[in-house]
Amino acid sequence: MKESGRKHGALSPCAACKLLRRRCAQDCVFAPYFPADEPQKFASVHKVFGASNVNKMLQELPEHQRRDAVSSMVYEANARVRDPVYGCVGAISSLQQQINSLQTQLAVAQAEVVHMRMREFTSSSNTGAMDMAVNQDNMGESLWSC
Amino acid sequence: MKESGRKHGALSPCAACKLLRRRCAQDCVFAPYFPADEPQKFASVHKVFGASNVNKMLQELPEHQRRDAVSSMVYEANARVRDPVYGCVGAISSLQQQINSLQTQLAVAQAEVVHMRMREFTSSSNTGAMDMAVNQDNMGESLWSC
Repeated sequence: MKESGRKHGALSPCAACKLLRRRCAQDCVFAPYFPADEPQKFASVHKVFGASNVNKMLQELPEHQRRDAVSSMVYEANARVRDPVYGCVGAISSLQQQINSLQTQLAVAQAEVVHMRMREFTSSSNTGAMDMAVNQDNMGESLWSC
Repeated sequence: MKESGRKHGALSPCAACKLLRRRCAQDCVFAPYFPADEPQKFASVHKVFGASNVNKMLQELPEHQRRDAVSSMVYEANARVRDPVYGCVGAISSLQQQINSLQTQLAVAQAEVVHMRMREFTSSSNTGAMDMAVNQDNMGESLWSC
């Protein structure tokens, strides 16, 4: 596992332990995901979820899923810091509106395609009839010219 | 403000105070949003954000925004309980994929509309030319018939 920003055996604590003013143990659950050089990441999740909850949530997950869990928690926490009322639910709502708008535009465009295909079909049927008429004219003409 | 599920002056605590086993004060910040008959709402936000953080986040907001903030926190917390790795960021990612797919479908449909319009235009130009040819034939015919 990558332990970026942390020196093995050194006294340099991870961003979480630094903020919580505690000793950063060799097996610190935060250290692999909250390097000392990115203090804002932990500050956000601590403010929104609380260090104890983040610790508990990470402990309940297998190690290979913890990095993704931290990324999603940092994303959620940053969204909540930016928008304390709606957090990332605001983003969900805005994406759903975008989906509704795209679905409407798509329905309009597809209806236009169907409409144009029908018009094209009708027009080609008429052209077929006209071709026949033209051919009859030609026949008439060739009769005249005989 | 609606204080659903809570009896004024009675001893019945809100769902938050019941879970936290504390006295539910008349001005309890949780009571208007976490009625006793919906204990799961508070259980989720407590598990994910922690009662103390929820309290702090509500206190930092004007009262008219607190109901929306609670709704979005409950939504987020439920998403995190269902999916401890991605939480509602999983929903965001899936909505973004849906948007990408809709944008592609829309681009295809719109390209087809443009293509059909061009074909229709070309076809009507040709029909125009053919009409002229037919008219010339008719003129020829009328010359013959003179």
